[in-house]
Amino acid sequence: MARLTLTDADASVRRWLDDEVKKLGCTLHVDQMGNMFARQKGRLNSSAPMVAMGSHLDTQPRGGRYDGILGVMAALEVLRTMKENGYQTNYDVGLVNWTNEEGARFPKSMCSSGVWAGVIPIEQAWNLQDIHDPNVTLRSELERHGYLGDIPCSPEGFPLGAHFELHIEQGPILVETGRSLGVVQGGQGYRWLTFTVYGRDAHTGTTPFSARQDPLLAASKMIASSNEIAKQHGALASTGVLKIPSNASTNTVASQVTFTLDIRHLEDEVVHAVQKECLESFANIAKQDGKGVSFDWTMDTDSAAVKFNKDCIDAVRTAADELVGAGQYMDITSGAGHDTVNTSRHCPSTMIFVPCRDGVSHHPEEYCRPEDW
Amino acid sequence: MARLTLTDADASVRRWLDDEVKKLGCTLHVDQMGNMFARQKGRLNSSAPMVAMGSHLDTQPRGGRYDGILGVMAALEVLRTMKENGYQTNYDVGLVNWTNEEGARFPKSMCSSGVWAGVIPIEQAWNLQDIHDPNVTLRSELERHGYLGDIPCSPEGFPLGAHFELHIEQGPILVETGRSLGVVQGGQGYRWLTFTVYGRDAHTGTTPFSARQDPLLAASKMIASSNEIAKQHGALASTGVLKIPSNASTNTVASQVTFTLDIRHLEDEVVHAVQKECLESFANIAKQDGKGVSFDWTMDTDSAAVKFNKDCIDAVRTAADELVGAGQYMDITSGAGHDTVNTSRHCPSTMIFVPCRDGVSHHPEEYCRPEDW
Repeated sequence: MARLTLTDADASVRRWLDDEVKKLGCTLHVDQMGNMFARQKGRLNSSAPMVAMGSHLDTQPRGGRYDGILGVMAALEVLRTMKENGYQTNYDVGLVNWTNEEGARFPKSMCSSGVWAGVIPIEQAWNLQDIHDPNVTLRSELERHGYLGDIPCSPEGFPLGAHFELHIEQGPILVETGRSLGVVQGGQGYRWLTFTVYGRDAHTGTTPFSARQDPLLAASKMIASSNEIAKQHGALASTGVLKIPSNASTNTVASQVTFTLDIRHLEDEVVHAVQKECLESFANIAKQDGKGVSFDWTMDTDSAAVKFNKDCIDAVRTAADELVGAGQYMDITSGAGHDTVNTSRHCPSTMIFVPCRDGVSHHPEEYCRPEDW
Repeated sequence: MARLTLTDADASVRRWLDDEVKKLGCTLHVDQMGNMFARQKGRLNSSAPMVAMGSHLDTQPRGGRYDGILGVMAALEVLRTMKENGYQTNYDVGLVNWTNEEGARFPKSMCSSGVWAGVIPIEQAWNLQDIHDPNVTLRSELERHGYLGDIPCSPEGFPLGAHFELHIEQGPILVETGRSLGVVQGGQGYRWLTFTVYGRDAHTGTTPFSARQDPLLAASKMIASSNEIAKQHGALASTGVLKIPSNASTNTVASQVTFTLDIRHLEDEVVHAVQKECLESFANIAKQDGKGVSFDWTMDTDSAAVKFNKDCIDAVRTAADELVGAGQYMDITSGAGHDTVNTSRHCPSTMIFVPCRDGVSHHPEEYCRPEDW
């Protein structure tokens, strides 16, 4: 599946969704970021904010058919099932399709729920450029497709009473533990750091270990150490990028190495503790071999942990108990970012995770079994 | 200093050398690889092969003024000093300038001593292309400058009775131990291996350690382990190149990592033992974390250790004792390749190392103090 946000393909599915919700008697509201809110009136005809179910319909360039999409389809299925059974809630319920969750075309992930939550200025979001064509902005594409709505993109413009998001886990935990449902407790806090280790290039044949300042040896030990430290805390620490910017060769010790460190845990305090211990350990490692190396670091991202609403979590747990039964569901934490992380700043929110095969997502092989929907 | 082999600058210094040795009464002989042999007749007018002193006058593109050059200049200075003092040896002595030692322009290092020694076929050496212009070959440049001689490039074409090469150490050992001379025992054996570690890309936030196959974590531990193993053997093991070919990102565990391993020791048996222990250790590391990784490897270079001639070494040691005195010189091993490694296959050979500042070579900052020449 390739449905980059606000492309013709995205506009097409938006129009389809528009039709579907109207067939069910919903009203459709579009805000200034193109977020789509379908509202099913409740019996009490109250002006209370609607309880929303939703996610996003955009994908990565080589994405799957479930990430985001399943959450919107599940919401639509709930509305259809209510309609088919003549069931009407007391208060308004509805569906949301959040614009540009992936950030794959306009590079800002969880973009329009972020604007709604007040963490991303709307001008900044509007001015995001297509990564392949700087003349095209998110706003110009909203206008082109007729999805630049009048409603302010904010909790005042379109308030929500609560927000529930069903999503594939994007990890292997449910599959490996044989559970069919995860009751999501919140989102991990994470910090992304970049380290640069400075040494001195030297001939591998003529330079004894005692005379070396080998940044790759030091970086290797740092990566291994960060893994040990994270394990001790039940946290995650991962290095995805390692670069040797100088002209490296088999018989030359590098002069400089850069690597990233991604530290995660449900508790911010643990993230901070892992970072602190890593910095202490790295300082020791820097002195260990030969004439030692130096290093510096930057913090590129600092995202606080989010705890979802207890009442919402309890509601999911009660439903899970009825639907799949005890032992078939488990508490789980979201490792990835989701629109619900943004909504939870302004309304009671939580998520429901369903298993995906091998934990694979952002890939055409992404798969969720029908019985797990 | 930038004097790439067989450029106009190299031709110019060759003509200068030609003049200088002829002024001293030497005869100049040029072989089919442009190797220059200056021969000073001995008193006995014997037809025995000459005892040679030599090195190379070519440099790296951003090289220094001592690597190679000092060995040719020292030989010239010996011949001048003999002349000035009316000293004549019993047998012939002389100077050699070996063509294309650096392999920087025509990519084959120790090229023409290699042809002389029979380890590089002359056609292969002749056909080497200029790295910037495939229309220019080593042979076409020999012809252009008039240095394609008639003498076969071989021990039969121009036999040598012995070969002595004075060279900067290209390492920090002499400087750090305060010695002014190194009596070179031979050249290290070395093996160059390339390892590829295979894992599976995974989201750093949603994939628990237990579910990962992280090739970068494994490679980091392998690099640290190879260092430990080499230390235990008094050998060297170095990783200069590490590459992550997939699209790495901060929040994605890589799927594949490639790194090099350069193992060195004066004894081939130790090189082999270090390799064996590394392979065993790497196999254990591959199983240690999460779901494990797999790896394969290739051997790119296998260069056996060379031991220089005992009589030549003794001659250098005796001279060192007289010249700088006990405690001021030391036995040392060559970590880099040199023309003498080739000559030692066919005639008694050794080298003399002199200190270079900070162990730096192949760099404009390369420096050897006049008192150390």
